[in-house]
Amino acid sequence: MRTEQLVESMEEDGIDLFLVSRPTSIYYFTGTSAAEILVVSKEGEPLLLCPSYNVPKAAEQASQCRVCLFSEGGLVREIMDRTGVEHLRIGYDDLPLSTYLALRNGLEGADFKEASQLVWAMRSVKDVDEQRLIRRAAEISDAGMEAAKECLVDGIRENEVAAEAMHAMLKEGAEWSAFNMTVASGPRSAYPVGRVTDREIRRGEFVMIDMGALYHAYTSDITRSFIIGEPAEEQKRIYESVLEASKVVFDHFRAGNKTNDVDGVARRSITNNGYGRYFVHSLGHGIGLDNHEHPRLSQDSTDILQIGNVVSCEPGIYLPRLGGVRIEDTILVTRSDPERLTKFPKELDAMTA
Amino acid sequence: MRTEQLVESMEEDGIDLFLVSRPTSIYYFTGTSAAEILVVSKEGEPLLLCPSYNVPKAAEQASQCRVCLFSEGGLVREIMDRTGVEHLRIGYDDLPLSTYLALRNGLEGADFKEASQLVWAMRSVKDVDEQRLIRRAAEISDAGMEAAKECLVDGIRENEVAAEAMHAMLKEGAEWSAFNMTVASGPRSAYPVGRVTDREIRRGEFVMIDMGALYHAYTSDITRSFIIGEPAEEQKRIYESVLEASKVVFDHFRAGNKTNDVDGVARRSITNNGYGRYFVHSLGHGIGLDNHEHPRLSQDSTDILQIGNVVSCEPGIYLPRLGGVRIEDTILVTRSDPERLTKFPKELDAMTA
Repeated sequence: MRTEQLVESMEEDGIDLFLVSRPTSIYYFTGTSAAEILVVSKEGEPLLLCPSYNVPKAAEQASQCRVCLFSEGGLVREIMDRTGVEHLRIGYDDLPLSTYLALRNGLEGADFKEASQLVWAMRSVKDVDEQRLIRRAAEISDAGMEAAKECLVDGIRENEVAAEAMHAMLKEGAEWSAFNMTVASGPRSAYPVGRVTDREIRRGEFVMIDMGALYHAYTSDITRSFIIGEPAEEQKRIYESVLEASKVVFDHFRAGNKTNDVDGVARRSITNNGYGRYFVHSLGHGIGLDNHEHPRLSQDSTDILQIGNVVSCEPGIYLPRLGGVRIEDTILVTRSDPERLTKFPKELDAMTA
Repeated sequence: MRTEQLVESMEEDGIDLFLVSRPTSIYYFTGTSAAEILVVSKEGEPLLLCPSYNVPKAAEQASQCRVCLFSEGGLVREIMDRTGVEHLRIGYDDLPLSTYLALRNGLEGADFKEASQLVWAMRSVKDVDEQRLIRRAAEISDAGMEAAKECLVDGIRENEVAAEAMHAMLKEGAEWSAFNMTVASGPRSAYPVGRVTDREIRRGEFVMIDMGALYHAYTSDITRSFIIGEPAEEQKRIYESVLEASKVVFDHFRAGNKTNDVDGVARRSITNNGYGRYFVHSLGHGIGLDNHEHPRLSQDSTDILQIGNVVSCEPGIYLPRLGGVRIEDTILVTRSDPERLTKFPKELDAMTA
């Protein structure tokens, strides 16, 4: 049971009681996200605290924990009843400030410690069931990308493209989108997070499309960049630079590799092509119940890739006011070669819509 | 300018410096949400702190503020440079706990005060431009509901219904959905927040559909409950009870009315029909840049309706494991009669798909 594994790492870390607030982590441990806080401690079964309207849903969905009504005052009393420890050491992940202040006032002598890493250490290694759900989510987002590409013509609006992509994902089995889609055209493609507007897409502009499917609570993540018509020389150079980085780095998604080294491989490739200062974000992030989770693949990350990690690989070049290109895949780190879960083509020919 | 109005209410409240962290509130004050924190104080122009990859976007979109790179250490230094006040009084809204702890350690003698009400007092009264955007968002979600109703047949899956509804909203001009849609059928309709699964919808089951459009950053909110085929007697009684509450309470959405009284009118109506204990949430909430904002219409709210409030009215009855019905509209409080912005029909005849 996952909460028992958490208790083991709490003991190693000197933590008596853990407050899980992140909805996806609550889901990971209990099978429901219809709660505010999950309380895990050495003694007693896990306690799931919910708003009143969610108590029936949580009671139906949650396994192996006690479901109660949430209030900050009630949480303080529950912790005092449960533990009776003089110098209680409380670990937490995304605790809201108001709850933290209520606990600080109500629990004299307690120590508080941000300890989300204990949860991420578990969540970042996907078991076979989780891998199966993410693989399916990736197939669904491939279908969404195909629908987006098929409708790209001069004059179509960004939100019309999003309509076809989202329609395809839901028909293919998605339960929703993993995040607010991006269909960013022309100068807007220079925004790493562009979202969707009603802008008309014109021939010769970059169109960056970033989407993911939500499938049985798990997510996928894919970005492709298109041009309607023939790309100009400079656009070709930008596209080929991103594509080259994406290919060069692929073989480095192996267990044991340092994530900052992996980021460095892609960054050097783009720098060698003269666009280093326009690759303005990190190479990637973990993908699972959250669409941005651990491990982080960035210059300042100390994470090391492990078998079972699912991560994005997303080199990009963004020229402010001119436009940008990103190519993003969802990749599984395996016992042998990396496995690309998003299979949509990414050659420039395939991209020219 | 909106930040100047915030400074005025800060002075009345004895606050020297306000840290705005809620993305929609940052958008409200600056025109961009590509930032982590907005710093507002009496002296100096507002300061917008962004992650590096968002600096160009924020600089393009934000008006009348200085755009800088965000770091917690940098924020502490910026506050010290700017103010030099010995006993600085800092107001905040949704400050992350880690930022709060960094500020507490770095700024000795500072007082911290949760003061989101100052922002909500402004945001909850919509000006004419905001009303126009929400009115359009409501029209778009009416189109989404029409598309959902049209495709309801025995055996269709929840996510297939969501596909048609989302497609219609985006084609109609939405920039995305205001929130993760709910299409909850059969026993799942008893969940107030049901979301979407791939469950097949069957004749004779309740189907609760809750959606909203995102339009130029503003949102709408509508729920309708359908049955494929003829409703059973008990289903009719439940539906008519919710409909009656929704009609009886409508005329009470007037400036000067206490929101807890308005909630009480709907609650009494449902209670008189014998379903009071199954109306498990509050009557409504403000709608704007956030889809759940102030004012709150609940038994424990002290808010009073004002001209320019846009709120949901959403009575509901939820019978665990059996099913539920909710009817929700987006309503504008005006100088005269309340204005229903979501116009989709809600009579039982119109609902039987």
